[in-house]
Amino acid sequence: MHALRVTRQGDFPEWYQTIVRDADLAELSPTRGCMIIKPWGYGIWERFQQEMDRRIRETGHDNYYFPLLIPLNFIAKEADHVEGFAKEMAVVTHHRLKKIDGELKPDPEAELAEPLIIRPTSETIIGDAFSRWIKSYRDLPFKLNQWANVMRWEMRTRLFLRTAEFLWQEGHTAHADEADAMEETMLALEIYRSVVEDVLAIPVVVGEKPENERFPGAVRTYSIEAMMQDGKALQAGTSHYLGTHFAEAQNIRYQDKDGGQTLCHTTSWGTSTRLIGGVIMVHGDDDGLQTPPAIAPRQIVIVPMLRGKPEDAELKAYCTALCAELNKQHAFDERVRAYVDMKDGKPTDKRWDWVRRGAPLLCEIGPRDAANGQVTFMKRNDLRDGEKLKSHNLSREDFVAQAPALLQTMQGELFAAAKAQLEGNIRSFDNWDDIVRYYGTADDEREFKGWARVAWSRPSGDALEEVGDRLKTLKLTIRNAPLKQPSSFGACIFSGAPGIEEILIGRSY
Amino acid sequence: MHALRVTRQGDFPEWYQTIVRDADLAELSPTRGCMIIKPWGYGIWERFQQEMDRRIRETGHDNYYFPLLIPLNFIAKEADHVEGFAKEMAVVTHHRLKKIDGELKPDPEAELAEPLIIRPTSETIIGDAFSRWIKSYRDLPFKLNQWANVMRWEMRTRLFLRTAEFLWQEGHTAHADEADAMEETMLALEIYRSVVEDVLAIPVVVGEKPENERFPGAVRTYSIEAMMQDGKALQAGTSHYLGTHFAEAQNIRYQDKDGGQTLCHTTSWGTSTRLIGGVIMVHGDDDGLQTPPAIAPRQIVIVPMLRGKPEDAELKAYCTALCAELNKQHAFDERVRAYVDMKDGKPTDKRWDWVRRGAPLLCEIGPRDAANGQVTFMKRNDLRDGEKLKSHNLSREDFVAQAPALLQTMQGELFAAAKAQLEGNIRSFDNWDDIVRYYGTADDEREFKGWARVAWSRPSGDALEEVGDRLKTLKLTIRNAPLKQPSSFGACIFSGAPGIEEILIGRSY
Repeated sequence: MHALRVTRQGDFPEWYQTIVRDADLAELSPTRGCMIIKPWGYGIWERFQQEMDRRIRETGHDNYYFPLLIPLNFIAKEADHVEGFAKEMAVVTHHRLKKIDGELKPDPEAELAEPLIIRPTSETIIGDAFSRWIKSYRDLPFKLNQWANVMRWEMRTRLFLRTAEFLWQEGHTAHADEADAMEETMLALEIYRSVVEDVLAIPVVVGEKPENERFPGAVRTYSIEAMMQDGKALQAGTSHYLGTHFAEAQNIRYQDKDGGQTLCHTTSWGTSTRLIGGVIMVHGDDDGLQTPPAIAPRQIVIVPMLRGKPEDAELKAYCTALCAELNKQHAFDERVRAYVDMKDGKPTDKRWDWVRRGAPLLCEIGPRDAANGQVTFMKRNDLRDGEKLKSHNLSREDFVAQAPALLQTMQGELFAAAKAQLEGNIRSFDNWDDIVRYYGTADDEREFKGWARVAWSRPSGDALEEVGDRLKTLKLTIRNAPLKQPSSFGACIFSGAPGIEEILIGRSY
Repeated sequence: MHALRVTRQGDFPEWYQTIVRDADLAELSPTRGCMIIKPWGYGIWERFQQEMDRRIRETGHDNYYFPLLIPLNFIAKEADHVEGFAKEMAVVTHHRLKKIDGELKPDPEAELAEPLIIRPTSETIIGDAFSRWIKSYRDLPFKLNQWANVMRWEMRTRLFLRTAEFLWQEGHTAHADEADAMEETMLALEIYRSVVEDVLAIPVVVGEKPENERFPGAVRTYSIEAMMQDGKALQAGTSHYLGTHFAEAQNIRYQDKDGGQTLCHTTSWGTSTRLIGGVIMVHGDDDGLQTPPAIAPRQIVIVPMLRGKPEDAELKAYCTALCAELNKQHAFDERVRAYVDMKDGKPTDKRWDWVRRGAPLLCEIGPRDAANGQVTFMKRNDLRDGEKLKSHNLSREDFVAQAPALLQTMQGELFAAAKAQLEGNIRSFDNWDDIVRYYGTADDEREFKGWARVAWSRPSGDALEEVGDRLKTLKLTIRNAPLKQPSSFGACIFSGAPGIEEILIGRSY
């Protein structure tokens, strides 16, 4: 018996929905395609944000805030310029409501002369600012970041993974030349790798996207790819070197040292609330979420075994004091986040609520613990011994002293488990037929097939399109060409030509 | 000569625009009515946010995130229910663009069945969630907060003070009864007072709004009112006790201890980026902004007097080391934020840039300082001795040791100066003719007239409307009835009836 009514093996998509609800992370809102992020989910986002923000700042980026709405002509200019530009966006056409025949409607007299678009990304409006702000080589590099909500009209919603509105961080930078812009592109990618691995405890493969998977308009797109427990890939962050394409469309030029006008080289990169979906699918189990301690809004939850009797007062005092002591400790260079759950309700119900949310350490304190100065606790990532729950006991002083190390160890254990899952599910193939045999046998998504690692000759244009079509018949896509490559390669699995790099192939979110 | 080309006395509105631009706080964007917030302005907001968030959390509120877009029927329900409901809002009517005759336009085939509104506030969508989430008295009080962007269509834009989009925090809570909801209303008000006074160094008058200035639908509205240097009032935060009005409209009920279904009493309260306008108008002077140290993105700026010569290396090293030492100190319970400005450019230009932005301590370090282990610095809030700039000198060790105390003292000095300005510009009046004489003589807004304190009999309905009309002829409004009241009152200045409280009257933003 587990705390969730669906298991990962039983029905992975349904398990995902269940955990989002039962761990109180988010829910669908009455606004089509949009979600309400609840405190446990939002708290995870805030912790991620804090750590990401720190590293973005430390590497010389300033935070700005640009408008939510973008004039249509900005979008039109980009659509002309960039092939494959998506046109599913929310369009504001009126600025007033009016009661007409007893019904509140957009006021026909308040139609905007030019429609406004809710930002799907801020590329265009930031590019416009760059063109005004950047005058000389002295202004370069220009490195900015923005935390914002963005909107893309999605027909099928999946909480955190695909919603019309989501929260994200978008970096935009301008540079004097390709070398400097490429250095920035790789810097952003490394920030992403480090935050996602160190803070979210999600191991990733860092690599370059093939031509057909690039961001529209990008010269090179890099990604970090994470493996979910069903073997599918989640693109966990992307970093784009945009060359001078956007600079040309938006006239972003600088006066160089010789007085000439030169186009800037730009980059952009982003991560979003989508990563919370990754945290769930990497660290969740059949009892709920296992929240990595570094991002757990509450790292240690203390449940007093209250019985509605006068003795409760003493027990409450013991728990409150224990909590205060824990909150003075430090883990992950921050104060420990401990919490006493004093709410009304049965202690066992509370226990399971916190197990489902994945609080890393869960202390259940009874009158005997209080009397003896003990702490009884469970580790969320080592919860069971067969069917039985596993609990530990320490003296209060020892628990307080050891808690930070316990949390840091658990963080490492979660990462190690995810790393083993990633590495254990990448298979090397050296011919196409084996790929077809492996991925093509059953169409049942419940078989968790992981990724394939294959050599290829990096085809381009039509040849690449043909490769994409072949993969599509197996519901596969190329995830990326890892930056870490072996020294020699077999033949290209698609064409038989000499291989020039290895790529990862898989199903994806 | 001052660092800005306009003075407060000369032209206050123009001075305001100048400081926003010259202190690099924000600028108008190509999107009508919306602003781009730049790093110095956004950094002030982030510091405010951090401190406000901490206090909101500590008093038992959780952060949520609700959708940007609200279905029209939610707004319609509120419009039916609440008189004076504003209808100027951005309306989303389409979800796709399409090229039609070579022009990108809203796709007629992608018209939404029901228009969506960009949240002017989240009252309705949060109320809807309350009605689903709150079931029993055990769920109460329900206390949540949200940080979000909101939008109200404004015809005249003034950066930070009045823009279509702005950033804010909105608290929404539900309670079992009036007493509990009123306690919450006053708690939020006290959080606002403390953050605005302690962190922004803006003294405020805490009080209740008269009936005609209440938030539509509120039973009681409270505000904190700040005085700008032109004597006008800025409403710096509001807290509303909503009674059961919204609960009724949205069916927010709970099962009480006896099993009956009872309406909740709700509250809401908000503060916004508008406060940055307040910081400017309270602390700015004719040299630019004086940023209160507690919210200054950079509290100590070090400008090395570089001369493009080999000796520069030594000077840079000295400044970098000094900065690192300063960053290890603590002020306001946080690490000190020091920064070396190594950018290209003349040191005197840099000096004036930082003076205009209002960095609290500005160190100008020359080769002689470096050789002698000295620090030469200016205090932004005590910048001049007549026309001359005032500079101080300390040994490096002494400066590092004293910097935190200096910052904290400056914070206190800014508050004290603003408090003197507030208190020195509230005049008591005991008859209407004197009011007319004082405020009615010249229509020149350049005369900074401050506020009036008068007794009144708290009229209601038509009588209050008549009072409002009389005040309007002098461009005055009632700001609030301060919570701190004297023990006895003169006659009502409007009707001659016995006074029952004192109110503050003034011009406002």
